[in-house]
Amino acid sequence: MVTMSVAQSSRESDLGAAVSFAEQIQAPANALAELSARLADDLADCNRTIVERMQSPVPLIPRLAAHIVAAGGKRIRPVLTLASARMCGYPDGGSWAGNRPGNRHVQLAACVEFIHTATLLHDDVVDESALRRGLASANAVFGNQASVLVGDFLFARAFQMMVADGSLRVLAILSEAAATIAEGEVLQLATQNDLATPEGRYLEVIQGKTAALFAAACRIGPVLTGRPETEEEALTLYGRNLGMAFQLTDDALDYSADQAALGKTVGDDFREGKVTLPVLLAFAAGDTAEQGFWRRVIEERAQCEDDLPRALSLLERHGAIAATIGRAAEFARAAQDALAVLPPSPWRASLAAVAEFAVNRRS
Amino acid sequence: MVTMSVAQSSRESDLGAAVSFAEQIQAPANALAELSARLADDLADCNRTIVERMQSPVPLIPRLAAHIVAAGGKRIRPVLTLASARMCGYPDGGSWAGNRPGNRHVQLAACVEFIHTATLLHDDVVDESALRRGLASANAVFGNQASVLVGDFLFARAFQMMVADGSLRVLAILSEAAATIAEGEVLQLATQNDLATPEGRYLEVIQGKTAALFAAACRIGPVLTGRPETEEEALTLYGRNLGMAFQLTDDALDYSADQAALGKTVGDDFREGKVTLPVLLAFAAGDTAEQGFWRRVIEERAQCEDDLPRALSLLERHGAIAATIGRAAEFARAAQDALAVLPPSPWRASLAAVAEFAVNRRS
Repeated sequence: MVTMSVAQSSRESDLGAAVSFAEQIQAPANALAELSARLADDLADCNRTIVERMQSPVPLIPRLAAHIVAAGGKRIRPVLTLASARMCGYPDGGSWAGNRPGNRHVQLAACVEFIHTATLLHDDVVDESALRRGLASANAVFGNQASVLVGDFLFARAFQMMVADGSLRVLAILSEAAATIAEGEVLQLATQNDLATPEGRYLEVIQGKTAALFAAACRIGPVLTGRPETEEEALTLYGRNLGMAFQLTDDALDYSADQAALGKTVGDDFREGKVTLPVLLAFAAGDTAEQGFWRRVIEERAQCEDDLPRALSLLERHGAIAATIGRAAEFARAAQDALAVLPPSPWRASLAAVAEFAVNRRS
Repeated sequence: MVTMSVAQSSRESDLGAAVSFAEQIQAPANALAELSARLADDLADCNRTIVERMQSPVPLIPRLAAHIVAAGGKRIRPVLTLASARMCGYPDGGSWAGNRPGNRHVQLAACVEFIHTATLLHDDVVDESALRRGLASANAVFGNQASVLVGDFLFARAFQMMVADGSLRVLAILSEAAATIAEGEVLQLATQNDLATPEGRYLEVIQGKTAALFAAACRIGPVLTGRPETEEEALTLYGRNLGMAFQLTDDALDYSADQAALGKTVGDDFREGKVTLPVLLAFAAGDTAEQGFWRRVIEERAQCEDDLPRALSLLERHGAIAATIGRAAEFARAAQDALAVLPPSPWRASLAAVAEFAVNRRS
């Protein structure tokens, strides 16, 4: 088990602030925000591309897409694509001018975000979620039908953009990721009402639904720049492990008392009856009465007011949150280890810090 | 307005029977079945490819996919891809051996069917349909969640197969078609509860949701074989008009008394409150009381037992079914006209006969 230091400094407040590399290494307060700040121009281009390419003559499409895109989120996947491209020496093409040669990493980062957004829209329909990032979910505002169809549109649009880019290798990477995401989500349906799901099976689910797209996002940089296969493999492995660390930390944070800042309220997963690693661990460690409790609230989703506090106390008693963060830390360490074959650079250090941040963040 | 002869002979019974070309011209009984029979080897390869490529380590995926694929349907889109390829001189590659050079048309026909199947799965979720081709719909058997996600999987798998094929032109055609389908479906949502939808707007909807994929399916043949742009445009136009003719005829057949053989019962669209051309025409021609009736049964979906017979009698009174078939016949004629620039061949005659069949079929 890897011991990781806990970040002590403030969180979102330093978003966008210029932080020197030395400071960042000492205190990876929000390494993702720092990386985003270093990629500010690329990220602004990416956001412009997203808005531009979600347009359609059918007004409901940009309206619904804007709802979910505007809700924000960390943009971690496009940031990874942009960072991996810059790290591998993708040249600066100057200011933004659409789909020009020096802008491929931006176009493809937007594709990655579109695929992610499409899966979010479909997830919320599948989960019947009423909230997404603390706001009413698209399906709650526009209906399930529109969410399914606009998800389909964004997915198709992402492929149109990849075709315009013209790299069959990138198309192969992202179409495979899309298939793997769907497989992970379907596998999750099967585990959804099964508290006896083994930990390995759960990891397989999040490997598909989350880690596959992180891996693909990181792989695009070395592919675009024609870097050697070892580097491509290293960044893919980094992305996959980072995705696992992020998802497991998300699972833990959903039950964390320190969640007000996330936009998510505590216990969203609980209320939706989601089988996540903390619950699986607490269930496995619980006595008969506790297992009965979990079966009622998660498998049968028959919940009453006092159930969340009881769940939190059971998770605490069995150390399920700490164990989940521990597993996340192992994946974060594996992500950092994967970077070793790449030449040292400020970008490499940033990606290593992001892996640490993935686990140490408090929201 | 084009007057088209009504096919008098039997329907599905001659599926797969060898019919000489001369007979076919005289009585286009089921020109689609005849074309399918002429493509029997290609179509068998295509069906094998479909079964092979819908496999996944996640068992629910092939199980759900098999449910909808096994339900059959006319396979008209892959037949169009295969026919357009053969018509344009795509060479015979011998017996089936996976994704070899002489098998590209088969692989891409399967892609077209996967995209179509994905949209069907999502449509049934969107429409909350309980039946598909007379059988329980996938969403009714496996749930909405699985239908959404397996649709996503099939869509991604189609793109993986196109990438394996390696033609960026084909990828461009089918990714654009996929985006257009989604736009058509979203536009349909907006018209769904609006009996004041103008006919032109309704035609725009089906142009997107149906005709775009027919057009793309037909375009693949000339692209694969490097035929001149005029032929590519001609086959695209043929496919687009054929798709319009098929959809409008489907809309009419849903209210036809002669529907037992379709697997669909009469009035499926009616019960789902679907705004289709027959209803729009009857609404526009109706008096105040009739318009009130249509508003209640379609917009409010407040239906009771006698409503379908009343709807059928109103459609009859205003000639709405005949007018819809008339519009379909115009598109079928336009499809046939588009073929004129192509060199005469038995394939061309078959495609022309399919356009006539699109309108004259009774199921």
